[in-house]
Amino acid sequence: MLITELIEKKRDGFEHTRGEIGFIVNGLVDGSVADYQMTAWMMAVCCRGMSEREIADLTLAMVDSGEVMDLSDLPGVKVDKHSTGGIGDTTTLIVAPLVAACGGTVAKMSGRGLAHTGGTLDKLESVPGVSIEQSYEDFKRIVRKTGVCVIGQSKNLDPADKKMYALRDVSGTVKSIPLIASSIMSKKIAAGADAIVLDVKTGNGAFMETVDAARALAREMVTIGRNVGRNTVAVITDMNRPLGMAIGNGLEMREAIEALTGKVPYTDPLMQVSFRLAGHMLALSGIAPDAESAVPMLERAIESGEGFRRLRAMLEEMGGDVRFADDPNLLVRVSRIVPVYPEKAGYIGRIDAKSIGTAALMIGAGRAKVTDRIDPAVGILMKKRYGDHVSENEPYAYIYINDETHLEDAERYLAAAVTFTDEAPEPLPLIYDVVE
Amino acid sequence: MLITELIEKKRDGFEHTRGEIGFIVNGLVDGSVADYQMTAWMMAVCCRGMSEREIADLTLAMVDSGEVMDLSDLPGVKVDKHSTGGIGDTTTLIVAPLVAACGGTVAKMSGRGLAHTGGTLDKLESVPGVSIEQSYEDFKRIVRKTGVCVIGQSKNLDPADKKMYALRDVSGTVKSIPLIASSIMSKKIAAGADAIVLDVKTGNGAFMETVDAARALAREMVTIGRNVGRNTVAVITDMNRPLGMAIGNGLEMREAIEALTGKVPYTDPLMQVSFRLAGHMLALSGIAPDAESAVPMLERAIESGEGFRRLRAMLEEMGGDVRFADDPNLLVRVSRIVPVYPEKAGYIGRIDAKSIGTAALMIGAGRAKVTDRIDPAVGILMKKRYGDHVSENEPYAYIYINDETHLEDAERYLAAAVTFTDEAPEPLPLIYDVVE
Repeated sequence: MLITELIEKKRDGFEHTRGEIGFIVNGLVDGSVADYQMTAWMMAVCCRGMSEREIADLTLAMVDSGEVMDLSDLPGVKVDKHSTGGIGDTTTLIVAPLVAACGGTVAKMSGRGLAHTGGTLDKLESVPGVSIEQSYEDFKRIVRKTGVCVIGQSKNLDPADKKMYALRDVSGTVKSIPLIASSIMSKKIAAGADAIVLDVKTGNGAFMETVDAARALAREMVTIGRNVGRNTVAVITDMNRPLGMAIGNGLEMREAIEALTGKVPYTDPLMQVSFRLAGHMLALSGIAPDAESAVPMLERAIESGEGFRRLRAMLEEMGGDVRFADDPNLLVRVSRIVPVYPEKAGYIGRIDAKSIGTAALMIGAGRAKVTDRIDPAVGILMKKRYGDHVSENEPYAYIYINDETHLEDAERYLAAAVTFTDEAPEPLPLIYDVVE
Repeated sequence: MLITELIEKKRDGFEHTRGEIGFIVNGLVDGSVADYQMTAWMMAVCCRGMSEREIADLTLAMVDSGEVMDLSDLPGVKVDKHSTGGIGDTTTLIVAPLVAACGGTVAKMSGRGLAHTGGTLDKLESVPGVSIEQSYEDFKRIVRKTGVCVIGQSKNLDPADKKMYALRDVSGTVKSIPLIASSIMSKKIAAGADAIVLDVKTGNGAFMETVDAARALAREMVTIGRNVGRNTVAVITDMNRPLGMAIGNGLEMREAIEALTGKVPYTDPLMQVSFRLAGHMLALSGIAPDAESAVPMLERAIESGEGFRRLRAMLEEMGGDVRFADDPNLLVRVSRIVPVYPEKAGYIGRIDAKSIGTAALMIGAGRAKVTDRIDPAVGILMKKRYGDHVSENEPYAYIYINDETHLEDAERYLAAAVTFTDEAPEPLPLIYDVVE
């Protein structure tokens, strides 16, 4: 096989065989396919697309490019959850312990955030002492003991995805559904998932800005799951506002602990989405007949304190100082808390979630570059949501800050992100669709 | 400007500004645009195309990427000729001296062949002593003295094209009309051409296999010429057979000398195409009112011996041993000449010109790799053409060979390339169209 002929084949809109896809993916990893050939091929994929069969073959070739976690000696269905990324999205820290509390097994590998705020790993590290690097044996031991463990992704997992992702980022080939879907699904499969629940965000704060684009990506991932024997469900949720009230690593960990200890109303969007995701995870695990029936179980896991105990136990096993779990206000001790007032009274209308994320990044809650250090205590705490009325002298948000260098910039971004209207706006949908 | 955003812009089918195209081309040359970004962008161009304005801007940005020859102190219109490459295509060595003999100025830079047989430079070098590397001053001196000089392309000319061509070759982005057209035209313009005649080949031995594809490329190049102020004419000619009878560097030089000394009938396809190309060159030079009226002048240049004298003088000025011009049989002295017979008598029907080229390459007449050495004396001499009748014991071709290692392979390729039929086949068109 000649790589140039395979590139030309895709350029001209033809379908690759499984062998051809394996040749391309293995060639990338062993260096026989050059970066400039891979980017040309990925651009051809962007322009010409791939069939469902090709995408499944691509996903499995990526899985096979590295180490594959064997979790078969852990009990039950290993169910994973993935979010395409949103602002104030703390669901993993709520959902994973709740599913464990209901009898599920969540042995999860997570990535670092290179976005507005940190990823789940950064949120875990807001608890002093927590180490997200655990040996394979310790990882399994913690899962056996607590039913849940979330650690950093192994360096040897899915090397094809690492190379492809790095190249896509610099070659204008990020927005391709076959490439996004295979990237997400290959990592989940390589990490040992038996079943996968996907939270595909849509809206101004999400990667997929329209519901149609989100649905197309969701369908593609669910199809991959079916084609490779991993039961997969995708929930399409709204990201035209932050999901929770907290944006920042310690703030989000505190919010997750509040959610697990019953301090967040069940009607809250964060809880509604968490219950839906956890419900599908329990259904795929064979513990609940369907996502809806799982909700009373999840409510009981909160009310009994079992959900919180699972999170606390996991943090402790990972080396964390559990005083920060028991008194989560310790997580957000900053030198200054700056209230943010509206220019004039009104209802909160349009919210540009991405700009709120950018404001949080500016004050140190996220990374602009891989090498940036995150301040775990800082961030933005919303006090009002979309549709709420705010009086003139009422703060609608607080900025938690230590280094004030970029405070004014962050205030300006935050002010521009929130639009006030004289009349209450139409309610926003929260869950658009479930693809299964 | 961010290169990733420009790549995405083309990926999504939008039109670049002139400034954006300059940014991409200059970035490639100065290294700020990486190879893997350039190949992604070129693949997006393959898939999404370019407007005429973009192609003209790309061509000029490529010209400006390096040295531009200033031939303004040479007399008359500097007219260049380019062929997209065919088998047995010796026209440059016939056309250039004939145009000079009629009063035109041909100061031409040519490339090396990396194909079935050598390029014009390799054919020139079949005459011992000829140096295709001449200083700028010597090049102009020879043109002033003889009206014609063909040398190797300056290393500093069009560096953007050199990089793009090398990357296209290995990234499946060769077959893109905007990229082919700008590559050809930018080299001609950088080499100082005032006017350009293009021979766009079509057929099984050509890069553009269909007349429609050839016409599309021809139109694009003529449009570029108009948009950048260089009068350009493209002649679309047939390559469903070798154009001349000789395939091999010394054989082709000998055939050119035979053509210039009146030994090839004017009705021969090689002469018909040469007259048409030279006619358009004289018309663009303002020497003939049109291509047709130029034919009697060209015939006189042969009959008077002036055409041959121009070639001989040029070869002499370039250091060549002119005994080889005066007795061109010296050019093709080989250890063995192998006749090729038909399996049974019949008319020559379909000819796969590319396979004949491959057979010539196998025995040393061309290069498979840049580093391969060419044997100037070897090659294939056809004795019969498309449509001719061949008796059972009549050779339809001769293989001129020194190293016999691959003789059997070459014989097999040659036999497979020529189809014999019981009835005379329909005549093939020779010139499909002229685009101006």
